[in-house]
Formats: sequence, structure tokens, C-alpha cells
Amino acid sequence: MLLRYFYDDKLAHASYLVGCQATGDAMVIDPGRNIEQYIAAAEKEGLRISAITETHIHADFVSGTLELAHRTGATAYLSDEGDENWKYQFADRIKSVLVKDGDEWKVGNLRIQVMHTPGHTPEHISLLLTDTAAAAEPMGIFTGDFVFVGDVGRPDLLEEAAGIAGTAEPGARQLYRSLQRFAQLPDYLQVWPAHGAGSACGKALGAVPSSTVGYEKRFGWAFQVEDEEEFVGMVLADQPEAPRYFAMMKKLNKEGPPLLNGCPLPPRLTGHKLVELVKQEAIIVDTRESAAFATGYLPGSWNIPLTSSFVTYAGWLLDYETPFYLIVDEANLLTAVRMLYSIGLDNVAGYATPEALEFWTRETGQELCIMPHVTPQQVKEGVLKGEIQVVDVRGATEFKEGHLPNAVNIPLGYVLERLNELPVHQPIVVNCQTGVRSAIAASLLRGVGMDKVLNLRGGFVEWATEGLPIERENGHG
Amino acid sequence: MLLRYFYDDKLAHASYLVGCQATGDAMVIDPGRNIEQYIAAAEKEGLRISAITETHIHADFVSGTLELAHRTGATAYLSDEGDENWKYQFADRIKSVLVKDGDEWKVGNLRIQVMHTPGHTPEHISLLLTDTAAAAEPMGIFTGDFVFVGDVGRPDLLEEAAGIAGTAEPGARQLYRSLQRFAQLPDYLQVWPAHGAGSACGKALGAVPSSTVGYEKRFGWAFQVEDEEEFVGMVLADQPEAPRYFAMMKKLNKEGPPLLNGCPLPPRLTGHKLVELVKQEAIIVDTRESAAFATGYLPGSWNIPLTSSFVTYAGWLLDYETPFYLIVDEANLLTAVRMLYSIGLDNVAGYATPEALEFWTRETGQELCIMPHVTPQQVKEGVLKGEIQVVDVRGATEFKEGHLPNAVNIPLGYVLERLNELPVHQPIVVNCQTGVRSAIAASLLRGVGMDKVLNLRGGFVEWATEGLPIERENGHG
Amino acid sequence: MLLRYFYDDKLAHASYLVGCQATGDAMVIDPGRNIEQYIAAAEKEGLRISAITETHIHADFVSGTLELAHRTGATAYLSDEGDENWKYQFADRIKSVLVKDGDEWKVGNLRIQVMHTPGHTPEHISLLLTDTAAAAEPMGIFTGDFVFVGDVGRPDLLEEAAGIAGTAEPGARQLYRSLQRFAQLPDYLQVWPAHGAGSACGKALGAVPSSTVGYEKRFGWAFQVEDEEEFVGMVLADQPEAPRYFAMMKKLNKEGPPLLNGCPLPPRLTGHKLVELVKQEAIIVDTRESAAFATGYLPGSWNIPLTSSFVTYAGWLLDYETPFYLIVDEANLLTAVRMLYSIGLDNVAGYATPEALEFWTRETGQELCIMPHVTPQQVKEGVLKGEIQVVDVRGATEFKEGHLPNAVNIPLGYVLERLNELPVHQPIVVNCQTGVRSAIAASLLRGVGMDKVLNLRGGFVEWATEGLPIERENGHG
Amino acid sequence: MLLRYFYDDKLAHASYLVGCQATGDAMVIDPGRNIEQYIAAAEKEGLRISAITETHIHADFVSGTLELAHRTGATAYLSDEGDENWKYQFADRIKSVLVKDGDEWKVGNLRIQVMHTPGHTPEHISLLLTDTAAAAEPMGIFTGDFVFVGDVGRPDLLEEAAGIAGTAEPGARQLYRSLQRFAQLPDYLQVWPAHGAGSACGKALGAVPSSTVGYEKRFGWAFQVEDEEEFVGMVLADQPEAPRYFAMMKKLNKEGPPLLNGCPLPPRLTGHKLVELVKQEAIIVDTRESAAFATGYLPGSWNIPLTSSFVTYAGWLLDYETPFYLIVDEANLLTAVRMLYSIGLDNVAGYATPEALEFWTRETGQELCIMPHVTPQQVKEGVLKGEIQVVDVRGATEFKEGHLPNAVNIPLGYVLERLNELPVHQPIVVNCQTGVRSAIAASLLRGVGMDKVLNLRGGFVEWATEGLPIERENGHG
Repeated sequence: MLLRYFYDDKLAHASYLVGCQATGDAMVIDPGRNIEQYIAAAEKEGLRISAITETHIHADFVSGTLELAHRTGATAYLSDEGDENWKYQFADRIKSVLVKDGDEWKVGNLRIQVMHTPGHTPEHISLLLTDTAAAAEPMGIFTGDFVFVGDVGRPDLLEEAAGIAGTAEPGARQLYRSLQRFAQLPDYLQVWPAHGAGSACGKALGAVPSSTVGYEKRFGWAFQVEDEEEFVGMVLADQPEAPRYFAMMKKLNKEGPPLLNGCPLPPRLTGHKLVELVKQEAIIVDTRESAAFATGYLPGSWNIPLTSSFVTYAGWLLDYETPFYLIVDEANLLTAVRMLYSIGLDNVAGYATPEALEFWTRETGQELCIMPHVTPQQVKEGVLKGEIQVVDVRGATEFKEGHLPNAVNIPLGYVLERLNELPVHQPIVVNCQTGVRSAIAASLLRGVGMDKVLNLRGGFVEWATEGLPIERENGHG
Repeated sequence: MLLRYFYDDKLAHASYLVGCQATGDAMVIDPGRNIEQYIAAAEKEGLRISAITETHIHADFVSGTLELAHRTGATAYLSDEGDENWKYQFADRIKSVLVKDGDEWKVGNLRIQVMHTPGHTPEHISLLLTDTAAAAEPMGIFTGDFVFVGDVGRPDLLEEAAGIAGTAEPGARQLYRSLQRFAQLPDYLQVWPAHGAGSACGKALGAVPSSTVGYEKRFGWAFQVEDEEEFVGMVLADQPEAPRYFAMMKKLNKEGPPLLNGCPLPPRLTGHKLVELVKQEAIIVDTRESAAFATGYLPGSWNIPLTSSFVTYAGWLLDYETPFYLIVDEANLLTAVRMLYSIGLDNVAGYATPEALEFWTRETGQELCIMPHVTPQQVKEGVLKGEIQVVDVRGATEFKEGHLPNAVNIPLGYVLERLNELPVHQPIVVNCQTGVRSAIAASLLRGVGMDKVLNLRGGFVEWATEGLPIERENGHG
Repeated sequence: MLLRYFYDDKLAHASYLVGCQATGDAMVIDPGRNIEQYIAAAEKEGLRISAITETHIHADFVSGTLELAHRTGATAYLSDEGDENWKYQFADRIKSVLVKDGDEWKVGNLRIQVMHTPGHTPEHISLLLTDTAAAAEPMGIFTGDFVFVGDVGRPDLLEEAAGIAGTAEPGARQLYRSLQRFAQLPDYLQVWPAHGAGSACGKALGAVPSSTVGYEKRFGWAFQVEDEEEFVGMVLADQPEAPRYFAMMKKLNKEGPPLLNGCPLPPRLTGHKLVELVKQEAIIVDTRESAAFATGYLPGSWNIPLTSSFVTYAGWLLDYETPFYLIVDEANLLTAVRMLYSIGLDNVAGYATPEALEFWTRETGQELCIMPHVTPQQVKEGVLKGEIQVVDVRGATEFKEGHLPNAVNIPLGYVLERLNELPVHQPIVVNCQTGVRSAIAASLLRGVGMDKVLNLRGGFVEWATEGLPIERENGHG
Repeated sequence: MLLRYFYDDKLAHASYLVGCQATGDAMVIDPGRNIEQYIAAAEKEGLRISAITETHIHADFVSGTLELAHRTGATAYLSDEGDENWKYQFADRIKSVLVKDGDEWKVGNLRIQVMHTPGHTPEHISLLLTDTAAAAEPMGIFTGDFVFVGDVGRPDLLEEAAGIAGTAEPGARQLYRSLQRFAQLPDYLQVWPAHGAGSACGKALGAVPSSTVGYEKRFGWAFQVEDEEEFVGMVLADQPEAPRYFAMMKKLNKEGPPLLNGCPLPPRLTGHKLVELVKQEAIIVDTRESAAFATGYLPGSWNIPLTSSFVTYAGWLLDYETPFYLIVDEANLLTAVRMLYSIGLDNVAGYATPEALEFWTRETGQELCIMPHVTPQQVKEGVLKGEIQVVDVRGATEFKEGHLPNAVNIPLGYVLERLNELPVHQPIVVNCQTGVRSAIAASLLRGVGMDKVLNLRGGFVEWATEGLPIERENGHG
């Protein structure tokens, strides 16, 4: 048996290829949209991808199952659990088998057994893997978004992101029961989840790639809760905001996402064209790091740096229907484009390099915009006197644990739709934890013309480090 | 003034960007289809491409004029010389100015003057460039396919490639008169042509990027011929075969080629899919070097190595309507695809890496094919006795200067359409000059099922070096 | 806690970085010589490498412990078990702590506990890892070359490779007892070994990166053997030959290997210089794949393709004192050089690209050499009649399971020192399993002037597939 | 004949390879230290570098002649003109021929004729190139630093940079006579110089790669001056400051520079080590662009961005004896290192990536430094009132043509040695033309503890554009 681990750190997404060297067959579990990587890996090992499966209809990235099945001719094994809202609509477009709890199939000498583990979603399955050539019992279980390392999948995502009201609590109860069942598995089984630290699909995921049933039972928080009611309360509390694009992903992954069929690279824009786009108020995403953006950017452009959070914020902020343009280094173009494609943002209409920005001044005679970064000391007086409005763009949970005095909390993803909550004539300081998210938010606010917006350098951490006053949910700090 | 030289050694094609730093304007002369390079260069110099021009309707590559005009909004200056068969049909789709002999325009402080120089084609113009800020007279002349370094553009290409009968001789006479006029220019002018050594647009192009009017007048062969009749005879003699794709290029470049709008990368095929394509007799182009191809290739696949001649042979052999597939290393994919696009072969339906070939044996139980390379000593007896049919795939001119005994001459580009001239049951040895073209030809012949085909290692050169008998046009050597 | 897995597939070597995000401390376990990767990973996570450890004195690659300690100032935790032959001699050149069974230390909130697990080597330790912030008990154990996935470390390597007589059996007994102790650990612990499939440090390593104590106890072969004597017999049987460079590695890793201090890239040789080196009979290693090598190589050059086995064969065949030269593509140079450095072959005196080979003919007038690949059908008669000497260069175990009639077995690593066993005037066919190792061996034999050597295409596998006669250890097949 | 042009835009340095395809011989003219490029180009064309020459002892980069001769065994043709101070001391370490005016040699069918053209330096020669197979007369002339496109080599460099007093005027007179002689050459000859726009070896070099004798005679400024005295005055006027490293280059290139023998890549530093180096006040060169540097840099570090001027400023500012460290992206490391090596700055002791800067705060608890960029409006009052000291770091010529009121002129290269001219307690604004050089200067001043230093964004250009008052040499603007 062979097992290969694929990790997309932009999505905190883990996928797997398992293969039987004896027969040359391989299966991919929970593929992402960049399917070339699985094809390349299988080829390198001399394996043929003859099966694909996924644990559930993903909400946080475009599934590669449909395209990989098209490209390889492999059979897709898809969950047939859950009610009619949870049926794969693309199943008949490829070779596919619908599976339920207890079903099993073989890939070469490997046996895969289905275990229905609802909670995160109703149709969610986990997959026990046995190397029948070497062992009578399974070696591990692919748990998808059911059990993570040190955490469990959140049952409220549907309600949060997909707007399916009233599903969070029943989901939490289902999850509780699924965990009870999981706890019956042998201690020594490896646990191979679909996400690592940083995913919005859970709240406390560890930065260790895999775990074991026994370790999770002993030390995973969810297994320490004895009472269902208590569990329901805990699992629903303090979950991070669900990115808005999750709803679109659910829909695409259920209906079947568009086939990429290779990788189109967008056209390069001239500086002149870029200037025209600014004048037309096109959506321009500047992927430079915030420090570079701050010292000179195009009016109206948004700063979403090409860090590991690029995908998340792009998914929050960009509209799936409207073409947009990138400011990106030539060397990072392919990476940026693949990231965007990974969540279905296929509408990249062109790109320009940072050098092209110089044409703004050349052609309009106007300077590039500057984004002032202010220090805690520079704004403390105004903040304490209430002369400056503080907008904290962290998540609600982070906010509750401590924030600047008189701050209002608008998580980054909601900034554009809650503009009306902000003062028009007052200076605004935007802060987050360390200054990264606030830089994005500040660029959004300035992009809609709020030119008194400042970014707090170092964020809440630096404010606190300097011993300045803090408020907490239930009183002053 | 700034002048940048771009050279595509696959096409032996030279293009230029000239700019006026004082005003920030720039012009591209004779752009190829990979327009990103001009945009990047202009941007680096802080210049805006505001003008584009080309010397004539090119036959050997897809012109970038239309797409570059679209992308930049620049004005295209296009020849209005020649009769109605030679009018740019896409001129009204962009900002354009039609120009005739004696016309001139400015790009910043640069003056461009049009000189009608027919011969290679009827509408061909050359462009005198003056840096008005520094000099009263021109610095040089962009000669397109009119005057090369040590050679002149061939006037027979239309008849040869585009099948326009009866144009070669009149073209030659026009060329003669254009040269007379060129010879009146000052000696010190630089000559900046559109092609370097290896182009099929001339027969003796030097491997020096530029020349001067005075040097060409003194040492260029065409200027040494005093008599028009003699010139016509000489310029039409012994021209290399015109690649078949030239006709398509002419048509595309007159009507306006499709816009690429970025660069689509084709999908990666699995080994399994590749096997299926072989069975369906799809067109598979294996870009490995001949030595590697020879030791194991897919039945029916063609070997067109990714050398500097890749474009030429792909253009000769591939059909513009039929999708085809590549065998190519991941690292070379972008290069290969860009080369194909440069001559309008946009129909790349997928690619696989050489590693995928192993799946042929794995899935069919059959070995990969082997292409025997034989040495002169191994075949000399059979060749001399006439038991082996020798097929020489070099050009007619090369063949005339010396070839193996009893050889038949079928230039590489015609091999597939002259199959009927070849014996069915006899062993065939294919040769060229050094073994490169014959490797391609041998793969084509084996691809259509002629399995007694052998490739002569080292080609005619090695045969001759070993002192074996040679025939020449007018008798034995 | 954070755990990162590093896998060098050329060495089948796994190393790990664990970190405590709370304090910013990190530790590397069993580092290889390419230490830049650990520094980069730590930096990306915002961690400082403050500790390094290794499970034992490695024999199959240059340890990175000394250089990493130098570069980072981290403390190295080194085994103080084993007798005086097994003491780290470089311990006092860096900050270091010598540790014994039962010792423990902290890296941030992580606790590491030492378990002495001799057998593979006397000083071998394993390391239990506990995330004290999250759990009271360990999460897993770094087992080095003690327990692999599905296998155990071989106790005979010292005797085999380092020539320390009489250590194999006592080692096997120690190993047996270490396993008994290991079996007392909780089932749910993860097992993180230092090697994956393909390492010569074991014989049946699985291609799955990690396992658990419980799974290994249930399904690992070594744990199924009840009796010590039986175990000793089994673990010593049929181990693959130990590469010769292992002895040098042991020595370097005990004394402290030379510091690389960056990565020197060797100079590029001209074709002319290369020709001179051939004439001087310098060691030239041609890294092209065998198919390309076979169609034209420099006299005397060795073919060691840049596959995942490159390091192993380079280590077997190259002398640590003599400078050598590479034939390698520009694009692969850095990879090749890093591979060689990883086993201490620092003596790369220059490289040339495959294109430079053409200069051989140009400057000497002689053809490049050709390596005939023959098929089973072409040689079967000669082989069966004994007119052709078959040399099987596979390992002894592979040979025993079936080989060509009348074949002699000389594993690849021993070919050059057992030349006297080969006939001088008889044609020789070299075979291995699939044709890869035999291609190397054939190049070595031809390199010493044996010009009747042929390589059997497809190797034993193809011979057998075609139904030709096979011999086995105990009689004819 | 074949001619290849190599251009190093960091050094504005042009070198050439000419080859005779008939014999396979090639010659390199004025090679730089990165000799791999010539070897690769020759190999690609199937040529052997059998000759090397240089026009003079270069002052602005490390010559590659010695190393290329070592690597290839080629013969170096070196000037034997000039007095004993101008003799190549390494000539006897390689195969070499000393040549004088009128000497000639062959490279295959190419003839090279020596023309002594002193002025820039006493031993300077130019080289006429004739393709004897095609022409009876030369095609062009390699003019080194004698005649450029639109300019001539400066005769004062020795006095300026190498401190050889009293050489500028005699050099100017020699140059005048050399130009007279040059003007006798035929108009149609091409002129191939060793520098393009931006080189400090002349003052008005054009951005066109080559010219002709006739064009220079008609439009080059130097040829329009009829009178020797006038010429001397003009050629010595307003030359840019000569970078300090030129003296070292002269010395190295006369004595023979150290052989690189490949390309050593420096070791990667951890964030922790970097912090230690800061504390030890090591020289740290931060290669990020100024905008990024300004928002957070290590105390004492210098900002020399990796632009095309990197080499010039590094050569001005770094000491040849003291090891230094780089902050550079992994992707740019090789480029940066090669640039430094190209002027002999071999002392790169290590590098860290920008990510490592975060460790400063982590380990010391202190913020990174910030470099305020101020706008003209922000400082105009202080400047006009004389409360802010303006330091203009442009060259003297630029300064004379217009500068801020009350500014003092200290060209960038002299900033560190003229610190005593600056006020201690007053705020200082540093400006240059556009803000690039002033950013470097500001980092140097802050590096020595002057923490009231500000950088004027947009420099003199922006100040002037906003209509603020300007002073000129001879009075207020």
C-alpha cells in the first residue's frame, strides 16, 4: 500500500492518494480543483487513478471530483446519505457509485468501508481503509470534516454560510451521536482528516497532520464532554464567521463545478489599460504585501496580499459574477490564478505587474494613493476621547476577548455591506489582531471613498503590549 | 531614443521596440504573437506602446499587431500598397492608419518614414527611423523581409506557399527595382531586418543581427548582380521549400488572427487516457529528442523534437483543424505551447509527460515501439545493391549537391503526401543531413504502418565522411 | 503544537520539525544535510530552532545536526548510550546535551522523553513526544531506524557496511528486546520513523508515512514472531546489500561531517575541456536517462541516471577522494549537486551539459559510443547455449527468487571489484529486474574496456514475461 | 560569421561573441565575470571559444578574461600599448598574445585588426572585424570604451577613480587624436561599444545597442567639435562621479582577479542569527525595494534595492575587506550574488529572507525601524525657513541644474565619509531626483544613528512639479 498526503496551505485542505502497487490502482480522497497534482503523483508511482471519493459536499473549495473523473475515467464513490437536498446532481455525468453506511469497495487490494458520520453535514461519510494484503483490520480512517486533529467539524456552517435556517442544532446532535460511534473504533487507527490548522471548518484544529482514534478519545475536547446538551452548547459557541463564498461552493459542488480543462493564464495589461480600468471603477485586487501597498496604490484598488489567507479573503470579498483584475508579480501569477480557481473565482480578466502602477502618475499627473499606518501612541488620545472611531475587523470571538475602547466590531468579510454603520465625517482607525486584516479592510473603505481611514500598525496585539486600556465584553479591562 | 531587439530563434524572427524617453511613447515593429514580451519591455522602460507597425503581411508566423493593438489601444500603421489582394482586412477593427510610400508619422520625437519596397510581397514597406532630438537624418531602416544581412527576401514565397501562380518572376523584378532604390540610401544607415539565419524567407541569411546599407551594397550578393535578368534567375534559384503552413499564416495575417487573450495551458493527460488516444489513432506529437524517442515510443506517434526547428516542422506536418496531443516534459510545456501558438496551432488538446508512456506496456501488455538507428556500414551493402530503398528528406538543393546512391528525394514536409512513391515490401532507410529530419520522417512513416523503416544515424554527413560512394545531380560522385 | 514532515525521496529519509507556537521554539529530529529546508520552514512558522536531536549515528546520509547547530546555535541532544565506539565526537564543538534512557527535556511546552532502543545500532534512541499544553500523555514516538511502517531496522548493517564483525547477531537480539519494550507502549501512539519505502536500512518498508504502535503490534511482521531465535534468523535473512558508502557515512557522522556553509555550484566545462578529461580518463558521471545515454556517450563515462536511486548508486560507485565530473542539464544541476552533497560526495569538480557531448566528434573525429540494448529474443539462443555470459546485477535475494539460465550474480555495487570473474573474450549480457541497474553496470563494464557488453532491455521481468526458461536457487524453474 | 550580443543591464556592459561556423572557432570580446553565459552560447552554436580579447583594463566590472582563458584554454589577445603602468600582469598565467596597433590575428575565417585608440585609458585598443569568407573589408569595429552610441569614453576616470593625478587632460588630448583617426574609417562600418546607457564610463550614452562610423561622425557630439582645446574642455566637463570601487576594479583587472570557479551560494541565516548580527553591528544590506524597507527594517541595516543600480551603489558603499550579509528573497538570491560577484564583492557571508525580520521583534521586544517618507508639502515650510537641513545626494551636475533652497550637495557615494558636514540636532530631509538614491542615503544616515532623517518622496521632480521654489547654481530659480 502507498499513501500520499497533499496539503494546500492556502485552504488548509488535506487530500490523499492511496494506491495498491500490486495491481497499479489508486484512489484519491477529497480532491481539490488542481487535479494535475494527483495525476502527476499517480504517474510517478506508476499508478492509475481508478477511483475517487469524497467525504461530503465541500463548502470551502471547489471539489476536483468531477473534473478528475472526466480526465481519468475513474469511478467516483459518492455519498447517498442525507435527504434530497444533499444529493450529488452530477453523479450521472461520470462513472459513479452512490454509497451508504456499511457499503464497501475495493481498489486493488485495498478495501474501503463507508461509515455514515453526519453532523458537519447530513450526508457526510468517513472511510475506513484496510490493506488486505497486509492486515485483516483497517489501518486508518479518512474523516473529512468530521474529526480533525484536536477538534471536530462545525455543524453550523450550513446555517451560517448557506443560509439553511435551523440546521445548526440538529447537526450538533447528529455530530454527538456520530462521535459516540467513532469512539467505538479501535484506538490504534490513524485519523486522516480533510483540514489542518486555519480552516474555517472548525475552530481549534491542530497543526499536526494526523492523529489516532485513541489519542482523540483521550485528549480531543469533544470526547471529554459527557452530556449531549453540553456538547451542543459548546460546539456551537464561538465558531469563526463562515466566509460568504461557502454558499457558492456548496452549490457548485452539489451541481458540479465548471471544468477548467487545463489552466488559462489571463492577459497582461499595460499600464495605460490599467489606468483606464481605474477610471472605469473596475475591481482591481492588489496582491502586494500591505507595507508595499500602503506606500502607493491605485485609487479604488483593494489590497488582498498573496499570503496563505488570500483565498479566504478573496472568497469573502469578490463577487462571482464580476470580472476583476490583479496586480501581481509575473513570478506569482500562476500561483495567484490557481488559488483563485481553487474556489471558483475564474473571472480573472487580466493582470498587471506592480511596475505598471507608475503609469498612473505618468498618465494622470496624480500621485498614487497612500495608506497611513498609525501607531497606538499616535491615536490613543483620539481613541480614548472618542474623537476617532475604531473599527475592529476581527471575528466576534476575538473581539469579545478584548478590544480597544469604544470600538465597533465588523468582521472583515462584512465591512462592505455594513458601511452605513460607520461615521461619515469622523476619522476612522481600523484594527485587527496584528494589522493584516485591517490593512485589507482599510483598503476597502478607502476604495469606497472614505479617505479618513487609517490602519493601526501592529493591531490589537501592539496596543495591548503597550499597556493601553482595553475593554472586554463584560466590562472594561 | 531607445531601441530594443527581440529575437525568436524558433522562427528566426526579429522584432523591435523603439521608444522616445522624452515623451514616453514607444512603437513595436513586426510584432510576433507573444505580445507579453513587448508589454513587459515597454513597462520596464516606463514607455507606453502608442504605435505598432509591420513591414508586410507575414507568412511565417502569426502577427501580433492585431492583438497588441487590442491590448494597448495603440495605433497600427499598415501598408496601403499593393493591389486589393494585399489589403489588411482587420484594419477597421482597431485604431489604424493606412500608409503609402513617402508617408511619415511621429512617435514622440521619433520620425518614421515609409519606403515602398515590393518584391518579397507587393505591399512590403520599409521604415526609416530618425531620432529628431539628436539628428537631422535617419539612423537606420527596418527592412522587414526586403533586405537581410547578406541576403534579400525571396519573391517566390507566394507562388510556392500560398499557391498564387505567376507571381514569382514579377516579384523578382520588383525586388530588383526596390534594391536599386535602397542602394541610393546613405552608406552609414543601419539595416534592421525581420529575420536572421535559418528563416525560410531567404536562403543565405547571416547570423549577425544587423548590417548597414554600405556594407550590403559592397558585399551583399544581390547588389553585385548588374543585370536584371541575371538577378531574376539567381534569386529564384535554389530557394528552400516553403513550409506548408505559410499559406495559412498569410490568410490569418491578412484577415486578422484569433486573439489569444492570455495563454491557455492544456490539460494533463493520464497514462490511461494516452493509451486510449493511441487506440483511437489520435495525432500525438512526441517532443523528446530523437535518441530518447527511438528507444521507446507510442505506436503512431510522431517525433518532432523541441529544438529550434520545432515550429517549422510542426507547421509543415500538423493540420490546422485537427486537435492533437503533446508528449512533453512539464518544464517545457509553456515553451512548447507558446511555440505552437506562435504559428497559430492553437488546437493543443492535452499533454502527457514522457513518464506516462510506461502505461502503454502496463495497460496493453505490448512493448513501446523501437526505431532502429543504423550506421552507414550496416546498410551500405544493401544500399549499393539497391536492396534497400534510400529516402532522402532534405531539400532539393541539398540533395542536388550530393546524396546516397539510388536515393529518392522527398523533402520532409512532403513525406506524408508522397507515400505512394515508396516501396511497400522493401526495407527503407531514411536520411537527411545529420539525422535530425530523418528521425522525424521515419516516425511519420512508421506512424502509417511502414515498419521496415530505419533511420540513418549521422545522415549524409557521416556517410560521406566514411568515404562511401556519393551521387550528384549530374552523375556519380 | 506543530509537526512538519520532510521527506527526501532520493534517500527515502524522513525528518521532522516539531514546534511549540506558544513559545516560538522548535526542534528538528534526524536532520539531513540540506539544512536550509528546516530553517525556511521554521521561519515560515515564526519558530526558532532551539533544539536538534537524532535517533542514532546514521549510515545512509550525512547528518545535518552539526551544521544546523552551528547555523542556529541550537542545542543538540545526542545519545550517550552504546559503548565507546558509539560516542559522538563532535558533541563538544556545539552546544550539546548527552542523553540516556529515561532522560527528558522540554522544547517550549513540548516534552521529549528518551527511550533506549538498541538493535539497529547500539546507541539508538527513540523519542516520545508529549504536547503538555493539550495532553498528559505522548502523542507519538520518533522511532528513527528502530520501527518502520511494517518493518524494523536491520541489525546487520554495521557488519555489512561498516565491517564491524560479529555485530549482526547480538544486534538482532538487542532489537528483539527493544521490540518487546516498544510493545508495552499504548496502542494509540503514532509511530514516526526515519525512513520510508526504498531505504536500505530495512527490507520491507511500507510506502505509508506513519503508523501506530497498535497497528504495528497487530500487523508488523516482527511482532508476530514469538521466539527470539526465530526472530534473529528472520531479521538477518535476505537483507539487501548495504551500499559501500555507508561505512564512510558512519565515520563522518560520528566524527562530524565537513560544514557546507551554503551550496557551492561547480564550474561549467566547455566541450573542449570535456574532451580533454575523457582523454585523461577522469571520472565522468553521465546523469541522463539510460535510453539517451545508450544512443551516444563519452568513452569511459558512467551512466548514473538522475532518478530517485541516483544517490544510492553514486554512493556505491564513486570514490570519496577522487574528483569527478557530471554530465547534467543546467536545470538539474542544483538538484544533482545537492543529492551528492547529501551523502558527502562534495568533490564535484565541474559539469557539462549533454550538448557538450557533440564536441567529442567535432574534436576527435570519432563517434560517441553506443550501448546496444538487446531483447530477450535476440539473445535467448546464445544464453541457453552458454555462448553468452549473463551477469545479473540484482541483489542476492532477488537473484535467488529466479534468474536467467547460467547467470552469475554480481550485485551492481560490486561490479568493478569483481571484474576478474567475467570472461574476457565472450559476449556479456547484463541484466537486472527491469533494465535500470543493468544499464549502469553495462556502462561501468564498457568504461573499463569490455566492449562486448550488452544491456538486456526490460530485464528479468521481460525475460520471464516472454515465457523463457528461468532458474531458481534450488534448481531449474 | 555569427555575432552574439550580451548585455548586462546592471553594469550597462556589452560584450560579444563572434564565431566562424566553418571552422567552429569563436572569440569573446570584453567578457564579464559571469563566464558561464559565453560557454553556454558557444556550446549552443557548436563553437569552441579559442580566443578572448578585451579592449582595455576595465574599471567598472571584474573582467572575465582570466577565468574564461583558464576554463577554456583559449588564447587571450591583450593590449601591449601604454606604459609600464598599463601592462597585464596575469598574461603569463594563461595562453596569451600581447598586441599592438596594426597587429592582426585570425579566428577561423575571421580577421581581427588592432587599432590603438587611447584616451579613455592609455592602453585602449579597438578591434576591426572582417568576415574574410564573405568580404574583403571589415564589417564593424569593437570600440570598447572609446566610442559609444552618441558619446565617447571619459578620459578622467583614472584621475577620478583610481586617483592617478594629472591624467585627465592628457587623456582628453589623446582621445581627440584617436577620434580624428576613427573618423577616417569608412562610414558603413558598424560600431560595437562595451557600454550602453547608464554606464558611468561616459555621460550621454544612447539606449541603442550599436551605431555606425558615419552616423557618429555626423551626429555624435564629440565629432562636431572642431578645436582640440574646446573638445578637452567639453569632454572633461560635467562627468558623473566615478564610483569608488572603480579603483579596486582597475587593480584586480590588471593583476588578475580571483577565480570564482563556479558559483558559491552563501548560507541562509536564521532569524535568530540575524538578530545577533544586528547586535554585533555587522553590515547588513537589505535588498528590498525602498517602500517595503521603509515600513520596517533592522537597526543599522542599509537599503540597497535590487534594481539595475544595485551593483553601482553596492560598489560605492561596501568595503572589499569586510564580510556582509544580505536580506533577499530566496528567488532573487542567485541574481543578487552574481551581481555582487560581477564587481568582485565576493565577501557575502550569509543571507536571510525578509520573513526573518519578524524575529527582531520576537527576540528583542523592539519594533523594526520605520523610515518616514515625507511629501514636499509636509516639509516646505521647514525647508524654506531653514529649520530643516536638505541634503541632496544627486551628482554635482544634476544639482547644479536646480535644487531645493538651502540644500547641501553630497552625492550618494560620499555620504558616509562626509557625515561631519551634517547638523547633529536638526531634522534632515534627504532628496535625490525621484526618491531612489535618497532612500539609500537615508538608510545609511539612520544606520549611523541619525534618527531625524527623512526621505523626500518623489524627490526633486515632485518638488518642482508642485511649483515650489528652486535654486540654481547661479542664483535662485
